[in-house]
Amino acid sequence: MKTIELTLGIDIGGTNTKFGLVDQNGHVYLRDSLATEADKPAEYLIQRLFEKLDNRLDKLSDDITIKGVGIGAPNANHYTGKIENPPNLSWVSVDLVTLIKEHIDLPVSVTNDANAAALGEMAFGNAKDMQNFIEITLGTGVGSGIVVNGELVYGHDGFAGEMGHVTVERDGRQCGCGRLGCLEAYASATGITRTMRQLLDSSDNPSELRKLSESELSSKTIYNAALEKDQLALKAFDTTGRYLGEGMANATLYFSPEAFILFGGLASAGDLIFRPVKKYMEANLLPIFRNKIKILPSGLPMSDAAILGASALIWHDIT
Amino acid sequence: MKTIELTLGIDIGGTNTKFGLVDQNGHVYLRDSLATEADKPAEYLIQRLFEKLDNRLDKLSDDITIKGVGIGAPNANHYTGKIENPPNLSWVSVDLVTLIKEHIDLPVSVTNDANAAALGEMAFGNAKDMQNFIEITLGTGVGSGIVVNGELVYGHDGFAGEMGHVTVERDGRQCGCGRLGCLEAYASATGITRTMRQLLDSSDNPSELRKLSESELSSKTIYNAALEKDQLALKAFDTTGRYLGEGMANATLYFSPEAFILFGGLASAGDLIFRPVKKYMEANLLPIFRNKIKILPSGLPMSDAAILGASALIWHDIT
Repeated sequence: MKTIELTLGIDIGGTNTKFGLVDQNGHVYLRDSLATEADKPAEYLIQRLFEKLDNRLDKLSDDITIKGVGIGAPNANHYTGKIENPPNLSWVSVDLVTLIKEHIDLPVSVTNDANAAALGEMAFGNAKDMQNFIEITLGTGVGSGIVVNGELVYGHDGFAGEMGHVTVERDGRQCGCGRLGCLEAYASATGITRTMRQLLDSSDNPSELRKLSESELSSKTIYNAALEKDQLALKAFDTTGRYLGEGMANATLYFSPEAFILFGGLASAGDLIFRPVKKYMEANLLPIFRNKIKILPSGLPMSDAAILGASALIWHDIT
Repeated sequence: MKTIELTLGIDIGGTNTKFGLVDQNGHVYLRDSLATEADKPAEYLIQRLFEKLDNRLDKLSDDITIKGVGIGAPNANHYTGKIENPPNLSWVSVDLVTLIKEHIDLPVSVTNDANAAALGEMAFGNAKDMQNFIEITLGTGVGSGIVVNGELVYGHDGFAGEMGHVTVERDGRQCGCGRLGCLEAYASATGITRTMRQLLDSSDNPSELRKLSESELSSKTIYNAALEKDQLALKAFDTTGRYLGEGMANATLYFSPEAFILFGGLASAGDLIFRPVKKYMEANLLPIFRNKIKILPSGLPMSDAAILGASALIWHDIT
C-alpha cells in the first residue's frame, strides 16, 4: 500500500483552534477543531489537540506519513518559534515549537496568520508560480504576508509584513496599536464600520442603516445595504477602497509585486471593494507601474484557508 | 606571476561617466572618467570608454583578469539589461548589456544607482554581513536599494525600491514624477531647499540665509547656516528629518530591516540630519520595532562609491 504524505496544519485563534492534515496538492485529508481555552496554559491546548488527532488517526485505514507541523498563530515569530504577547490570548510567551515537539518529533514551523495565508496562496491558491506578491488579510484587523523572490519577507527579527500599521492619514484615527492613522483603522471590518458611522453622523442623507442599533452596524450590514444601492453604504466602501488602494500604490513602490491578493471577510464583498481599490490604486501609482499589477481574490476556500496556510509552511520548506 | 582578479564598474551619470577596476576587497585598482555626452548615441559613450580603458590596460605591468562588467545608470532595469527613458539623458531606450558585450565578452549586469549603492554597501561598506537593510540615497532625488534575505528586491518587473516616491503628505508638494507629496519632494537636496524657502517666506525670524539670492539658497548653504546655529536652518533640517524618519518608520513595517543606511550629499550633514531622522523614526515606530533599528552613514568613500557599487553587481553574482 502506498503511503500518503501529509503535513499537519494548525491555526490557533482567540476562540477556536483548527487543525488538519493536508497533502501536497492542498487536499484536506482530515480536519477538526477544538476550543482554544486561551485562559488556560498553552500546554493544555496542545495536549488536547494531540489527543483528538491521535483518536482520529487510530481510525484511519490508509497508510499515512506526517512530514511536519506548520502553525499559524497571532504574533507567532518564525525565527524564534514563539508567540509573544498574542492579542486575545492570555499567554505571555509560549515556545510553540518546543511544546509541539514534546508530542511529535517532526519539523515544526510557525508564523503569523497573514504570512501563513500568503504561503497557502503560493502553494494552493491564486499565487501559484508567483515569485513576488502581497497577500492582504482584511478581517477584524489588516495583515499582510509579503513574498519576494519566492520567499516570505520575515526581515531581521521576524516581524516584517505589518502593512496594516502603515500610516495612511497623518493624525488620523486611533488604532489599536496605540498610533494614529494606520491602514488597519480604515480598511478592516471595524474600519469600514467606523467610516459608516462617520458618514451617518455627518450628513442627513437617507440610509437604511439609520434604522439599525449601534451594535447592529457591522461590515456585514453595510455590505447588505450597499448591495441594495444604499448611497452612504456605497460611499463607505469607496472610502475604504481609497485607503486600501492608496496603501497598495505605496507598497508597489517598495516591492513591484506581480499581484495583490485580498483575503478575508471584507474581500468577499467582491466588486464593492475590488472596484474602488483598483480605481484608487491606479490613480496613485507611479506611471511605470500603471495597468500591470493584478488585484485578485484569494484562491483558498475560506473554510480551510487557515489550515492550508499553516500546512503550506512545511510543504514550502521541504519541497 | 599571480593574476589579479577584478571587475569593471561603470557609473553612467547625466554629465560624467566614471569607471574603475575593483578587486574583491573593494580596492580600486584603476579609476577614470569621461564626459557622458548624453546628446549623442550611447554607442559613442561606450566606444570612447573602452578606448580609454584599453589605453590604460596597455600600460599595466600586472597580470589582471576582468571577471565581468557591472553598470549603475538611471532607470537601468536589471531584468532587461536596458535603460529606459533615463532622466537627463537623451537616450530613449538603450540595450546596455548587448552594447557592452560587443566590446567585451564577459558577464554584464546593470541596475540603477541606488541598487548599486546597496550592493556596494553589502560588499564593501557598512552592510557587510547584513541580510536585511535599506540603503537610502539622498541626492537631487531620493532613491532606495532594498535588501531582503541577502538579495536586492527587484520585484516582478525590476522597478522595485522606489521609496523616494512613497506619499508622505496627502495633497502635498508637487514632485518631479507628476504626483503630489512624495518623500523625494521633502527629503532630497532640492526638498530641503524648498522647505527652507517656505520657512523664510512664512516668518520674519532672523536668518543669515535671507541675505542670499534665490540661486544661492541650496542644501550646502543651509547646511553651513545650520552649523552656525541659524534657527531656521536647523528647523529646515528638523522638518527634513521628520519626513525621512516617518518614511523609515513606515518602511520598517514592511521589511523589519536591521539597518537603514543613508548615502549621498544630505547624509554627509551628519548629526544635523541623523538626529532628527532617528527622533522621528522612533516616535513613529510600532512598539515591537523600537530601539533596535540602526541608522548608519554609508561606509563607502564618496568619491569611489558609484564605481564600487557597480563593480559589486558582478562580485555579488559570482561569489
